[in-house]
Amino acid sequence: GHRGVDASGETTYKKTTSSTLKGAIQLGIGYTVGNLSSKPERDVLMQDFYVVESIFFPSEGSNLTPAHHYADFRFKTYAPVAFRYFRELFGIRPDDYLYSLCNEPLIELSNPGASGSLFYVTSDDEFIIKTVMHKEAEFLQKLLPGYYMNLNQNPRTLLPKFYGLYCVQSGGKNIRVVVMNNILPRVVKMHLKFDLKGSTYKRRASKKEKEKSSPTYKDLDFIQDMPEGLMLDADTFSALVKTLQRDCLVLESFKIMDYSLLLGVHNIDQQERERQSEGAHSTSDEKRPVGQKALYSTAMESIQGGAARGESIDTDD
Amino acid sequence: GHRGVDASGETTYKKTTSSTLKGAIQLGIGYTVGNLSSKPERDVLMQDFYVVESIFFPSEGSNLTPAHHYADFRFKTYAPVAFRYFRELFGIRPDDYLYSLCNEPLIELSNPGASGSLFYVTSDDEFIIKTVMHKEAEFLQKLLPGYYMNLNQNPRTLLPKFYGLYCVQSGGKNIRVVVMNNILPRVVKMHLKFDLKGSTYKRRASKKEKEKSSPTYKDLDFIQDMPEGLMLDADTFSALVKTLQRDCLVLESFKIMDYSLLLGVHNIDQQERERQSEGAHSTSDEKRPVGQKALYSTAMESIQGGAARGESIDTDD
Repeated sequence: GHRGVDASGETTYKKTTSSTLKGAIQLGIGYTVGNLSSKPERDVLMQDFYVVESIFFPSEGSNLTPAHHYADFRFKTYAPVAFRYFRELFGIRPDDYLYSLCNEPLIELSNPGASGSLFYVTSDDEFIIKTVMHKEAEFLQKLLPGYYMNLNQNPRTLLPKFYGLYCVQSGGKNIRVVVMNNILPRVVKMHLKFDLKGSTYKRRASKKEKEKSSPTYKDLDFIQDMPEGLMLDADTFSALVKTLQRDCLVLESFKIMDYSLLLGVHNIDQQERERQSEGAHSTSDEKRPVGQKALYSTAMESIQGGAARGESIDTDD
Repeated sequence: GHRGVDASGETTYKKTTSSTLKGAIQLGIGYTVGNLSSKPERDVLMQDFYVVESIFFPSEGSNLTPAHHYADFRFKTYAPVAFRYFRELFGIRPDDYLYSLCNEPLIELSNPGASGSLFYVTSDDEFIIKTVMHKEAEFLQKLLPGYYMNLNQNPRTLLPKFYGLYCVQSGGKNIRVVVMNNILPRVVKMHLKFDLKGSTYKRRASKKEKEKSSPTYKDLDFIQDMPEGLMLDADTFSALVKTLQRDCLVLESFKIMDYSLLLGVHNIDQQERERQSEGAHSTSDEKRPVGQKALYSTAMESIQGGAARGESIDTDD
């Protein structure tokens, strides 16, 4: 991987410090989203998937870009009009996107997994930013028309939500990042987490994983610990199965086979017990889940990676 | 063009008689639509646009196909799953499509224009079948993903509705046909017809055209004969303008520039006068338009051709 740590202890990616990368991402997205919203809305065309917008950010500033404390860099936005359309479909308003990503600090995930990617989450827990390799970015770009088709026909899809694909170019290096939905926000505590592939071959969480405070279990653990499965009402069940079937068809058509269903279980009874044992310490402005909240996602492993959840997933099968 | 007439006076296309072509089309579409409806509905995938289904029809019949009185032929269906999805979007039920095209005689248009294409209309006036050249079929096939995107984002589009693209292969010849909506059905009489390009250069109907019983006028005729334009209520007007703008954006993205708006005007007052002067001859089961019916269409000239309306259009600009 390209991830490292420098002498001061700061994380680096391709020798670029995390703070520099965060700064460039925030400047770049700020510019590109602002620039887009000045252009009138229009239909997405086939060509829009292949567009790459590029803007230069000299450290002394220009008439388009502000001055900054990093080295000169170039910021590239892939398929800006297409991703604007996707964000709109996902109900993300330009202002909210801008605010979450650019006006609040990005938080680096400390336990980012084995893929060598760097992960950031926005302060409001809404978005994940992940560095991707050249091949992954290229692959995602090629997938966009098919991704568009899936979103249109299958709006309940559990495949990752992609909000943007960008590249920071500096000192001859390209750092590509993708902005996605955060599938396990901290607001709702997951009492159990499973990474399910529908396979039983070596599908048990490692000892090391199980020692974590919030381990991600696998298929064999699920069979053993939840022999009766999960109870879903009939409508939810059939909708879920149908969505998974449709998603699998899309993954198959993309020739992606290394994917899994990340299942987070929020146990309401357990939550209530925990709250009562904590006493009456909770205050009214504390964020708290309202009722049961189901957060399923079929992770597109080859792009999002198990590490998107801040866990290291053993690549044992 | 490939259109001709044989010794008996029958129209031919690439030396194939019209009756043979009609027979092969009906057998072929009958097979392909029936075959499709036996397969479960599923989402359209990117790959579906590139699929070509092929079935052999030996004259003695096979276990899949019936015997027939024509020479052996092969019938190819382009992008069957994608067109099934389009037909569904357009509200065409498989049974209705099958019935109109295969169970009722196809009517050859006697005045098919200069393009060298052969035109058929179904007995119920719903569908037009047009022979297209190799290049046109290839172009349409390439356009399908963009066409899909336009239909999804711009459901009011006035671009032609494409229901199917097929190829009849026989004796080393390929005859490609496209099935489209019939934009000027006979049910509603058009008292005036205009082919509008937004250009004033040589945009006047020819003398020959004006001598026809139902001429298609052009831009300069419109300016001269309807100096006040057409009255539309504000909502209809703005919806129409917006749709035309969006359609033009799509045509531009396809690099198509030879297109026009075919405008048919059904004059209710004139219709009423004509009916009264005819006396009380009309019977109750006679088809008659209910209220005013607006039928606009931006014809995609390079594919549909002016000739789709059964008129010869002078290619004067």
